[in-house]
Amino acid sequence: MNPELPDRVEDRRAQLAGIVPANLKDADVSDAWARAIWSLISEPGDGVAGHLVAALGAEEALREIRSQASARRGPRSLALTAGLKRWLPRLNDIAVEGMFRTARFARLRLVTPENADWPRGLTDLGAHAPLVLWVRGAGVALSSGGPRVALVGARASSAYGELVAADLAADLVDRGVCVVSGAAFGIDGAAHRAALGMGGATVAVLAGGVDRPYPSRHSELIARIADHGAVIGEVAPGGAPTKSRFLERNRVIAAMSDATVVVEAGWRSGSLNTAGHAAALGRPLGAVPGPITSATSAGCHRMLREFDATCVTSAADIIELTGWETQPTRRAAADGEDERAIAGETTRTNEPRRADSSMDANTSVLNALGARARRSSDEIARRAGLVTAQVEAQLGLFELEGLVVREDGGWRRAAARPERG
Amino acid sequence: MNPELPDRVEDRRAQLAGIVPANLKDADVSDAWARAIWSLISEPGDGVAGHLVAALGAEEALREIRSQASARRGPRSLALTAGLKRWLPRLNDIAVEGMFRTARFARLRLVTPENADWPRGLTDLGAHAPLVLWVRGAGVALSSGGPRVALVGARASSAYGELVAADLAADLVDRGVCVVSGAAFGIDGAAHRAALGMGGATVAVLAGGVDRPYPSRHSELIARIADHGAVIGEVAPGGAPTKSRFLERNRVIAAMSDATVVVEAGWRSGSLNTAGHAAALGRPLGAVPGPITSATSAGCHRMLREFDATCVTSAADIIELTGWETQPTRRAAADGEDERAIAGETTRTNEPRRADSSMDANTSVLNALGARARRSSDEIARRAGLVTAQVEAQLGLFELEGLVVREDGGWRRAAARPERG
Repeated sequence: MNPELPDRVEDRRAQLAGIVPANLKDADVSDAWARAIWSLISEPGDGVAGHLVAALGAEEALREIRSQASARRGPRSLALTAGLKRWLPRLNDIAVEGMFRTARFARLRLVTPENADWPRGLTDLGAHAPLVLWVRGAGVALSSGGPRVALVGARASSAYGELVAADLAADLVDRGVCVVSGAAFGIDGAAHRAALGMGGATVAVLAGGVDRPYPSRHSELIARIADHGAVIGEVAPGGAPTKSRFLERNRVIAAMSDATVVVEAGWRSGSLNTAGHAAALGRPLGAVPGPITSATSAGCHRMLREFDATCVTSAADIIELTGWETQPTRRAAADGEDERAIAGETTRTNEPRRADSSMDANTSVLNALGARARRSSDEIARRAGLVTAQVEAQLGLFELEGLVVREDGGWRRAAARPERG
Repeated sequence: MNPELPDRVEDRRAQLAGIVPANLKDADVSDAWARAIWSLISEPGDGVAGHLVAALGAEEALREIRSQASARRGPRSLALTAGLKRWLPRLNDIAVEGMFRTARFARLRLVTPENADWPRGLTDLGAHAPLVLWVRGAGVALSSGGPRVALVGARASSAYGELVAADLAADLVDRGVCVVSGAAFGIDGAAHRAALGMGGATVAVLAGGVDRPYPSRHSELIARIADHGAVIGEVAPGGAPTKSRFLERNRVIAAMSDATVVVEAGWRSGSLNTAGHAAALGRPLGAVPGPITSATSAGCHRMLREFDATCVTSAADIIELTGWETQPTRRAAADGEDERAIAGETTRTNEPRRADSSMDANTSVLNALGARARRSSDEIARRAGLVTAQVEAQLGLFELEGLVVREDGGWRRAAARPERG
């Protein structure tokens, strides 16, 4: 059984029409094409597939298993033998062509690890990293270089939990943070909605194909996220969201976020799975407390007791957790890159940092600025807890450095990173 | 100025009539008498007084400063000179006789460090330990050798906080824990009331003289605590509760408790002072979370973030914190003493312990038993999460060991400690 897959790059380019940029080099076309097929035949987090693709490249790895399929001989490792049993039944030209047709029809986009939009952090998953990401819509929220925070929680949330999720999401996007979640009912939905409502960046990571909005009652919400944020997934178009795919989806949410915060969760909530992934990756973990009389906060309290999660009660707490509180905007403008190393360096400690001397007046001023909202120097002084004269002097210096913009008599942060535009 | 204090032990015994046991030895009478006077002339936590009394004994220390008062010469340390300036103005026979008269009239009792009722843990305060305790009423709650937990919190508490304080206090006393608090409005009052309501042990530590109920609107509550629990303080009768005495009172609450739990507290609540004392003493610290939208929980969340407090949501969590969860009842029945060393050993780690293999089925059964309430084996099995047959087998063994009592078809824990009765 050697399926009739196109070997000529023009044919592959035709299958990828609209899915990858038209000016992509031939080698990149074949790589994207092969990765798309890997997303069809392997399950998320399949480490054998991950190792094979890492060792041979996606196209060569695909050629290898196709030849193995026809040959059925020669030395094979046990892992590879088992892998072939998983992959080959799904590898046929009809399924492959169907996948690409669905993707073209749904106007999906492929993002490979070489793409600038590939979310930093996913690489930390090693052989278990997604082989490719499918993106529904333009995926504008992927191109932000700023901090990303996963806000996740119970589907069966309380009014308190939804209020808190919305408040935190709104405050986070107002400070230039991208809110990552899973588009589920309850906490996830509240976080996405509030982020959209503020015109902020939000990413929904789906467990199945991104052309299949799940839950279906969130079709409209997911469409709005696709239009204004990003809807991504690693499963090929048409793929159903299965239980194991939900659990693997959670690792993507955790890995692409600088911190994971559980807003509300029952004692055995699936959100604790996301939290577990974050902890395994050394990502900072936050939990929002709630009334101890509320079953939907029991999982958060468990995280505080058993998982050493940090108690977070505000967007500022969460940003502190990400390690971005140490003058991210300033640094970004200073060298425009290496922000990942900075974030990595400061987030790995996973210790709640305290407001101390490192949080100097300059940082306070920067933190008091909005990414979009224009604020008067009085208002900034009030938020920063400083006197207006001091704030105005500092704002003048920041303006010279290109860190802040004066507009209509107010101040806002400058669009941070050169590579953003 | 050498006040005319009685030097003859009969006179001292007369001043202490009803305040100390009639059969007290002469030396102990003089010690108690001198300590009472020290409680009048020195402020709580006065380390110079503490060192002096520790070095010379209370009576000799008193004689020393009286002779210094008349001599006004000879070598003195700066600390002693300053001490004399604090103590001598208060040292006069009228004030001393007034103190003893007040104490006799109010039927107070003196407890010295040599007394069996002296709360273990206070010694950890070193030179800052109380020199003596004044007790209003019989102080029955002092003679329990079981675990003690400080439940403290905001005076301006919310309905949620009071509910939680009452629930936790009731559950704690039901498990044989003595609830220590400060008799204030809000959380303190709710904790005391619930403990009394369950017929459990509770201790109120007052900042002023125990003859002066404070706050006065809690006079009736304090009277009930005196009748059924214990009302104690280190300040001489008649002494007013001052701000500094409140802060020093908090160190007594923290030191005499195996764990301190803040139920509800504002960002700068005085309860955080008690928590600070507990932390300084290496005592485990718990904080009850609440809605992040509630200002009266902000201090608790701060403790979780900044003070490494453990998130507690139930009496079981709190007992785990005290280090007494490791089969206290069993151990107590086995040797009937040394419980202090056990508690000390296990509480010093101050690390949240997890429910693991150490929490075996036997412990679960013991924890599911009430100290007063009789429970059916079915009910115990349900609480312990075990099957009834297993529970019944274990209860049989425990009955042989004298750990449990079968009554009216139900089971309860045996009165734990021989020395209790």
